[in-house]
Amino acid sequence: MDNLISQTPSAYPFPMLIKNLIQTPLVRNSKNEITYRGEMRYTYADLYKRVCKLANALTDIGVKQGDTVAVMDYDSTRYLEFYFAVPMIGAVLHTVNIRLSPEQIFFTIDHAEDDIIFVHEDLVSLIESVKGRIATVKDYYLLCETEKIPETNLGFAGEYESLIADKPDTYDFPDFDENTRATTFYTTGTTGMPKGVYFSHRQLVMHTLALSSTFGSINTHGTFRRDDVYMPITPMFHVHAWGFPYVATYTGVKQVYPGRYAPDTLLKLIISEKVTFSHCVPTILHMLLSSPLAEKSDLSKWKVIIGGAALSKTLCLRAIEKGIDIFGGYGLSETCPVLSLAHLTEDMLELDNEKQAEIRTYTGTPMSFVDIQIADEDMNFLPWDGESTGEIVVRAPWLTQGYFKDVKSSENLWRGGYMHTGDVAFGTPDGYLRITDRAKDVIKIGGEWVSSLELEDIFNHHSDVAEVAVIGVQDNKWGERPLALIVLKPEKIVTEKELLNHAKDYIKKGVLGREGMLVKVRIIESIDKTSVGKIDKKLLRLKYT
Amino acid sequence: MDNLISQTPSAYPFPMLIKNLIQTPLVRNSKNEITYRGEMRYTYADLYKRVCKLANALTDIGVKQGDTVAVMDYDSTRYLEFYFAVPMIGAVLHTVNIRLSPEQIFFTIDHAEDDIIFVHEDLVSLIESVKGRIATVKDYYLLCETEKIPETNLGFAGEYESLIADKPDTYDFPDFDENTRATTFYTTGTTGMPKGVYFSHRQLVMHTLALSSTFGSINTHGTFRRDDVYMPITPMFHVHAWGFPYVATYTGVKQVYPGRYAPDTLLKLIISEKVTFSHCVPTILHMLLSSPLAEKSDLSKWKVIIGGAALSKTLCLRAIEKGIDIFGGYGLSETCPVLSLAHLTEDMLELDNEKQAEIRTYTGTPMSFVDIQIADEDMNFLPWDGESTGEIVVRAPWLTQGYFKDVKSSENLWRGGYMHTGDVAFGTPDGYLRITDRAKDVIKIGGEWVSSLELEDIFNHHSDVAEVAVIGVQDNKWGERPLALIVLKPEKIVTEKELLNHAKDYIKKGVLGREGMLVKVRIIESIDKTSVGKIDKKLLRLKYT
Repeated sequence: MDNLISQTPSAYPFPMLIKNLIQTPLVRNSKNEITYRGEMRYTYADLYKRVCKLANALTDIGVKQGDTVAVMDYDSTRYLEFYFAVPMIGAVLHTVNIRLSPEQIFFTIDHAEDDIIFVHEDLVSLIESVKGRIATVKDYYLLCETEKIPETNLGFAGEYESLIADKPDTYDFPDFDENTRATTFYTTGTTGMPKGVYFSHRQLVMHTLALSSTFGSINTHGTFRRDDVYMPITPMFHVHAWGFPYVATYTGVKQVYPGRYAPDTLLKLIISEKVTFSHCVPTILHMLLSSPLAEKSDLSKWKVIIGGAALSKTLCLRAIEKGIDIFGGYGLSETCPVLSLAHLTEDMLELDNEKQAEIRTYTGTPMSFVDIQIADEDMNFLPWDGESTGEIVVRAPWLTQGYFKDVKSSENLWRGGYMHTGDVAFGTPDGYLRITDRAKDVIKIGGEWVSSLELEDIFNHHSDVAEVAVIGVQDNKWGERPLALIVLKPEKIVTEKELLNHAKDYIKKGVLGREGMLVKVRIIESIDKTSVGKIDKKLLRLKYT
Repeated sequence: MDNLISQTPSAYPFPMLIKNLIQTPLVRNSKNEITYRGEMRYTYADLYKRVCKLANALTDIGVKQGDTVAVMDYDSTRYLEFYFAVPMIGAVLHTVNIRLSPEQIFFTIDHAEDDIIFVHEDLVSLIESVKGRIATVKDYYLLCETEKIPETNLGFAGEYESLIADKPDTYDFPDFDENTRATTFYTTGTTGMPKGVYFSHRQLVMHTLALSSTFGSINTHGTFRRDDVYMPITPMFHVHAWGFPYVATYTGVKQVYPGRYAPDTLLKLIISEKVTFSHCVPTILHMLLSSPLAEKSDLSKWKVIIGGAALSKTLCLRAIEKGIDIFGGYGLSETCPVLSLAHLTEDMLELDNEKQAEIRTYTGTPMSFVDIQIADEDMNFLPWDGESTGEIVVRAPWLTQGYFKDVKSSENLWRGGYMHTGDVAFGTPDGYLRITDRAKDVIKIGGEWVSSLELEDIFNHHSDVAEVAVIGVQDNKWGERPLALIVLKPEKIVTEKELLNHAKDYIKKGVLGREGMLVKVRIIESIDKTSVGKIDKKLLRLKYT
């Protein structure tokens, strides 16, 4: 039968397209609602109609297959409409990172060759200076929540609601190659200008299917279910809000879009809309839990994936004690993003909080379809023995094929058939991945690697510490030494010496190699963050070494 | 950006292969067990090791990519191992329908050009006559549960357990084109010899992902979950046991394989192994519920999809009253098979049993990725208005591309870009499909179509009726008239005339057009079934007209 291999299914192709995530009775007849800040709410049937209206509007204003439509908005139901309508007509959605500087935003719009830009009224000033400098942008459209059009020289060609108002609410979405580019956005690189990554329909569909069919070990833990209520707390401009707006829509669950992030607004929405599933970075979780409102709130129905930066055991324990089902996730802008989730097995859920926190802060087990290897510098794959440490390299159906118009960086990203993450980790025999450092954040003391994350965790255990970042600083004797930059909680007065002794006590207990004793401590006012809320170690190294 | 469309993801391909359903820590570290009849049980790690051992054994005996490996077995953990190992080395798994006649089995083995056959000790006699007649079959291997090798002239080249015993328990499964054929089997055609259908890795993976990410409206109804316990009650040789052994493995749930089907054995396994999820045809459900053991058993944790034939409202109500979460499913051998599931919305779950049964016996709402249309004879798509009736035509990522080596039948199957199912149905405005008949079973009375299924349901409401099949018989005046062939329950003595009056009373209430009054009734001893337990209307028409 050799000759018949590979003939299937060429005759009747069924491409994997984003339209398939929304175009079924299961989704369109879902009885759940989708709300913007709890102020406006509509049904799944409404969502589909508005997606069709937007598709008609885009087609009418001349958007063609292969064109790029940029959106500058906060998390909104509008944004969800763009997530579907733009790729479904064969165009590319550019989710602009609105936290970048105006000059960086200009760079990304120019580099992505955007054709049309939709911009929120409050963000108009960010691109006023850009007008006229970008040859490709034909028109600007306004996303306006108030009656009054902002004063600006941008010369809007139209406003979202009036643009779609009279359009037909059906659209015959075409079939095309599933490898067609669907989305693009820019990573907040730690060196040089942002780099563009891009994802195809096939990639986003596979990511959605894998995520929505990944269950926790038991049904109540860590699982995305039909009766969940979803709210993103990672911006929709950032890696498709970790892909969950697609998962939530495909699953037909209730969805809550919070607009701008403010801790109390988010908490109020979690309570009033009965949100059960979110994802966010540690910094935001920290802000939420530190709000006085959190004290009074029942968060015991809330599941939250923490990613984007290492989840400290201290923060994890605080969340567990509030009854939150908290667990780590791992992925990069380059990986769509989800690669692994720190789901616990049934046995592990029996452990005490302290031991559970140990596992919940792990990077987790690879999702289905994700081939994660730990590699040494010669691309030998190391055993998952709980010890052997190397770089995480990965294959999966949803990784960016490179950086847009940047051959050199792309070649560095993909080597030996694997994407190189720059993250350093070991694996345990039961399949859990533990990141010990970003490759570029690793501190080398006299030839030995010391984990800055482990050191940070030690300082986080001190009750007066609000935030800590450990960087490597040059040292004549040791090559490098760790420097802990620490922000204290309000009105705390612990000294640098006391903090150092706290760390040394911990290290003496054997939680870290003796090299860790060489850590230096400096108390500072605040720690610099990148545009997506991660600690900006590159900037810290510039400032403090 | 036009020029860049479709470049993704050619550089770093990640084919969708069956190995991806089992090769992740999530699956391999599942703490659930897999049992054969409750007598032998092993872990997921064992399953993976045995799949590797089998792959090594197959490679050692010369099975190459593109070869076809036939299996003749009852539902077993061995069969599950074949489901993975054979496609994972790039070969094709032929699941032989062991309920066919020896001559038909010979036809399928010959037509599929099988290279190797594994046969259960009790089924040896079925193919003894075949030996020497099939050029392609190189060797026969035995699947033996007892110590003694059966006496036969087959000349076995080996026995399963001893074949794999000493093989290495790892295997470096290769990547290849995702469109590679993975499985083949033969439909029990109602005309002529069986027809071969075939499915690729991509198709089986998509089917698995769609099924495992399809949720009921609320989490307790109709949903396959991580804490389910799965047992097939549709044979593994028949359309991949509806695809659920792949879903169950991918999801890491406890699995129970029952060997041969006997009602009391199945019931005992459901109770002792705490089975919560199965699928079967109405005939088997009827047998299970009629067993005295069922009376005493708590089946209120059991979810069961009914397919293969129409689920009568009467049987559905009986199941509901036992607390069973019963719901219809729809698919064909040609469709991998699942196309739709009769999940209820939250509102519907509030309805009384009678009204729920109405919906649970529906064909259901199309699964994600399934494009179902109701077409008239000119392939105009009809509205889903609860009335307009036509043929179900379908597109989905997992439909057979044709019949194996049968161009003419394939051309008839696929017309106008859609697969023609031969089933007649209407759709409701909220997306539920209701099959009224098989196209070839439709009865035309004076130009009007009458549904044989509706008539059957009316007779099923009579308390003395055990089973009924309605067929069309030639009639000089009307062209065709319906004939109801009825089997009575033991010791019941209702007359044909009384049954006819029962039907007429129902029809007068308006549940069916007046043409239904022309039905004739005949009480018979038993109703003929096909090899997979469906009512054999073709044979009945031959016998009774």
